[in-house]
Amino acid sequence: MRILVDMDGVLADFEGGFLEIWQREHPDKAHLPRQERKSFFLVRQYPKEFRSIIWDIILAPGFFASFPPIPGGLEAVQEILALGHEVFICSSPMLGNPTCASDKFNWIEARLGRDWSARLILATDKSLVDGDVLIDDRPGMAERGIQTPTWTHILFDQPYNRHLEEQPRLDWSNWKEVLLNGQFGH
Amino acid sequence: MRILVDMDGVLADFEGGFLEIWQREHPDKAHLPRQERKSFFLVRQYPKEFRSIIWDIILAPGFFASFPPIPGGLEAVQEILALGHEVFICSSPMLGNPTCASDKFNWIEARLGRDWSARLILATDKSLVDGDVLIDDRPGMAERGIQTPTWTHILFDQPYNRHLEEQPRLDWSNWKEVLLNGQFGH
Repeated sequence: MRILVDMDGVLADFEGGFLEIWQREHPDKAHLPRQERKSFFLVRQYPKEFRSIIWDIILAPGFFASFPPIPGGLEAVQEILALGHEVFICSSPMLGNPTCASDKFNWIEARLGRDWSARLILATDKSLVDGDVLIDDRPGMAERGIQTPTWTHILFDQPYNRHLEEQPRLDWSNWKEVLLNGQFGH
Repeated sequence: MRILVDMDGVLADFEGGFLEIWQREHPDKAHLPRQERKSFFLVRQYPKEFRSIIWDIILAPGFFASFPPIPGGLEAVQEILALGHEVFICSSPMLGNPTCASDKFNWIEARLGRDWSARLILATDKSLVDGDVLIDDRPGMAERGIQTPTWTHILFDQPYNRHLEEQPRLDWSNWKEVLLNGQFGH
């Protein structure tokens, strides 16, 4: 199998990176705890008057370099590869952030090495990238692109997509069951 | 048709960007004029003792932001799109350069706007990107990837690939003939 793995919200903790800066720079303002997040785009769930200062954080140079890893993710992709599957990391860059693309390459390279930064593909439209499976926390990926993708979307479980009934859903504690023993296992 | 267009040596003048810095920083050393270039990787054609200072230039932050456009390229991709084809820019990042990926996104956005930076795909292995045609100055693209690509490679004509007999070859003066009236036209 060729498995495409999204980056933000799957391997890199965008939410955690944002919360850390938000609470440090705006200690006087409320934050949304992870478990209460209900929309894919966090800016939409914060009060309107905060939108501009939230975008200031997201579009700041270096923001995408600051994310902690999502626990278990980096270990899992290495294990999937070791099991003999092809693994590529498939991420859409935040176009308004002037360092996002390089921050993503450098983030992967610092944690997994050059062999893995060579496995990073940046594409706004992931339907153009060929694979069997796309693991992605964003709902509705299979319907977003310019063409019907070759991959099946497996939703990566996050609080902000739990209102959906989309199945299967995967996280880094159940990935072996979902990916290898379910409908995708061969 | 979906047409994938490479960036360095096709839209962005890597060679020109290098020569400008080389001649400015090393006015005492010979340079290879464009017309005498015979290998895809310029570092291989310079004397061995220059390799390290050539790599210092190529891997320096901002190098990929410094390239002039290749004449006619930016106009051509806009015209191909206006003719009703799909166009995506498909580039392999120089992994050792810490700002290459963002420099590429910012280069496209500064010259063509956000709609076009959204059309930029960065992938070390272009065989994973789906398309009908790939316009690329690097010889042998169709044999380099992990899989047989969906696209046909059209070689973008450059002095350093003219020793090859590969046909068809395209440049920004003959692209309409090659792309629209030849075997690819419908």
